[in-house]
Amino acid sequence: MSEQKFSYQQLFDFSKTVLKKIGCSDADAELSVKVLLSADLRGIDSHGIARLSGYVRLWEAKRVNATPALKIIHETPSTAVVDGDSGLGLVVAPYAMQVAIDKAKNVGTGWVSVQNSNHFGIAGYHAMLALEHDMIGIALTNASPLVSPTFSVERLLGTNPICVVIPAGEEPAFVADMATTTAANGKLEILQRKSGVAPLGWIQTKEGKQSTDPHELKAGGALLPLGGDREHGSHKGYALGAIVDIFSAVLSGANYGPWVPPFPSYVPMPDEQPGKGIGHFFGAMRIDAFRPADDFKKHMDKWIKRFRSAKPSPGHEKVLIPGDPEREMETERMTKGIPLLKPVIDDLKFLGEKFEVEL
Amino acid sequence: MSEQKFSYQQLFDFSKTVLKKIGCSDADAELSVKVLLSADLRGIDSHGIARLSGYVRLWEAKRVNATPALKIIHETPSTAVVDGDSGLGLVVAPYAMQVAIDKAKNVGTGWVSVQNSNHFGIAGYHAMLALEHDMIGIALTNASPLVSPTFSVERLLGTNPICVVIPAGEEPAFVADMATTTAANGKLEILQRKSGVAPLGWIQTKEGKQSTDPHELKAGGALLPLGGDREHGSHKGYALGAIVDIFSAVLSGANYGPWVPPFPSYVPMPDEQPGKGIGHFFGAMRIDAFRPADDFKKHMDKWIKRFRSAKPSPGHEKVLIPGDPEREMETERMTKGIPLLKPVIDDLKFLGEKFEVEL
Repeated sequence: MSEQKFSYQQLFDFSKTVLKKIGCSDADAELSVKVLLSADLRGIDSHGIARLSGYVRLWEAKRVNATPALKIIHETPSTAVVDGDSGLGLVVAPYAMQVAIDKAKNVGTGWVSVQNSNHFGIAGYHAMLALEHDMIGIALTNASPLVSPTFSVERLLGTNPICVVIPAGEEPAFVADMATTTAANGKLEILQRKSGVAPLGWIQTKEGKQSTDPHELKAGGALLPLGGDREHGSHKGYALGAIVDIFSAVLSGANYGPWVPPFPSYVPMPDEQPGKGIGHFFGAMRIDAFRPADDFKKHMDKWIKRFRSAKPSPGHEKVLIPGDPEREMETERMTKGIPLLKPVIDDLKFLGEKFEVEL
Repeated sequence: MSEQKFSYQQLFDFSKTVLKKIGCSDADAELSVKVLLSADLRGIDSHGIARLSGYVRLWEAKRVNATPALKIIHETPSTAVVDGDSGLGLVVAPYAMQVAIDKAKNVGTGWVSVQNSNHFGIAGYHAMLALEHDMIGIALTNASPLVSPTFSVERLLGTNPICVVIPAGEEPAFVADMATTTAANGKLEILQRKSGVAPLGWIQTKEGKQSTDPHELKAGGALLPLGGDREHGSHKGYALGAIVDIFSAVLSGANYGPWVPPFPSYVPMPDEQPGKGIGHFFGAMRIDAFRPADDFKKHMDKWIKRFRSAKPSPGHEKVLIPGDPEREMETERMTKGIPLLKPVIDDLKFLGEKFEVEL
């Protein structure tokens, strides 16, 4: 499929102007775009600018508030619950992560559960905010239900990612950012565009049979928890997705399980929702709340070097450290530009025409 | 293979007497056996009384201190590092979890990383200590290296379990306790005894090829991270195992990666260890540090009921909630007895003769 490259600045200016047109403040528009484009830079194209028009449609459907009043509604020295006031998750999440960081500065760690939010882009952006403070950063979010728990055909969980970011010394930080499914939905979307075949263990039909058709979700099928099937540990992926759901939403008062609001604005909201919006969970742990940061970083460097130099299996060049591929991609795309597929460009142009902004 | 049932009390008395003979205090012996037998009750036979002689051999090898002076060596209001003084992990872990719970009482959450410890039995026992305080409990531990990271043939990680325990109201608590590998080592041991065949995705040969031989580890092979291979998300299992290793050992000053001391006393200690003993990590989060505990429990009940009543896939009876199978097993074994296999009974009898204790 044909693609075209755009500079970071070009996409930044376009997106920021669009978000200001829907009523976001200058600061919120800038922050949102920074979060959004961090996904494109890091190669997670499904969570970047390709979603811009989706966020705008949620605003049009009055499900996103462009001028939210973010606030802490409950707290202790190490915890808080934040009400996102239906704001863009792209704005709510950095606010909540900052609350976690501030608490960690005071008492060693900070833990923040968020209600009444929307899609927050990539978890990695938010967790990585901890790094400059010599803290470990954690970001979780629930998402609209596409995943069946082990032994079921119902879609009850989102792809509910877990992101854990750990600072190092000379080595770059350890950045694990993963959906709790065998494969993220974005990987299916890539196969859909290529008319490719999905490996067994990624998806099931609506009857609960194994499938290799990347369009299976449209026919009522489901993504599978990490592990794929019971024999390969899917009950563990299911449990991980469940933990993310509960920390993000049952702790905060957001919607959980099958009641999480869908991202596409044309999908109706679930009936009788038990909470508000979608939920996130953030954590920050000060390294020197455990041991001197320099000691820790020296050992993290040793850890990373030992794993990176492990003997590779035949056909593989080397062992990767979580975050390696995304960091390399970020350097490349910042200098050489961000490639967008034609349907994404068309969608952005349509958005530009509507709001009289040129791409 | 022939087996014989023993009452909980019989195994309790036997094990406690043996541990007192190696010098444990009455209280430490009792606590250790309680932790150990919680594994047998819950059906995790690999981590229960079958390991008693292994712990004793570690004491004989002077790698376990029967009278440890447990202490906090660093702390903030929400964190601590505990030095286990080479004690039995069965004693060190409940102490450290109590420190986490006490901190959570004061500031909302408590997080404790532990150095200089030994094998702590099942993670679930320790995390579940949080439940009676209306807290979420978390327990992680690293372990001796049996697992290769994605793309490698070297064994650099343990089966590094993650346990998260979440209180509910009328429903029983959510208890997820899982190795970060496709299958726990205990499952391989079961196949070894049966001369069974392991599913693909559990293990690889020392050359990095897929294997179905449950004896592969003895030939230099390795367990595989949850996911099995890259296409099925093994980089996620690898990242989860790595996070457990870093939280447990790099944060605390214990040994990590390939330097974690082996459980079998006949396996030599790794050279040039970067830390002390093995490491654990514990967390406790007070529910009412986020929202009133009764509200939370009402929603957890709703969450659990919704998942438990999800439409099952053909051939399956129902969706399970993490902790369901172990809880049922616990009730059964407490009343009907704990079955032990002949080699385990022989091993215990040998131990009994040595210490003049009757089984």
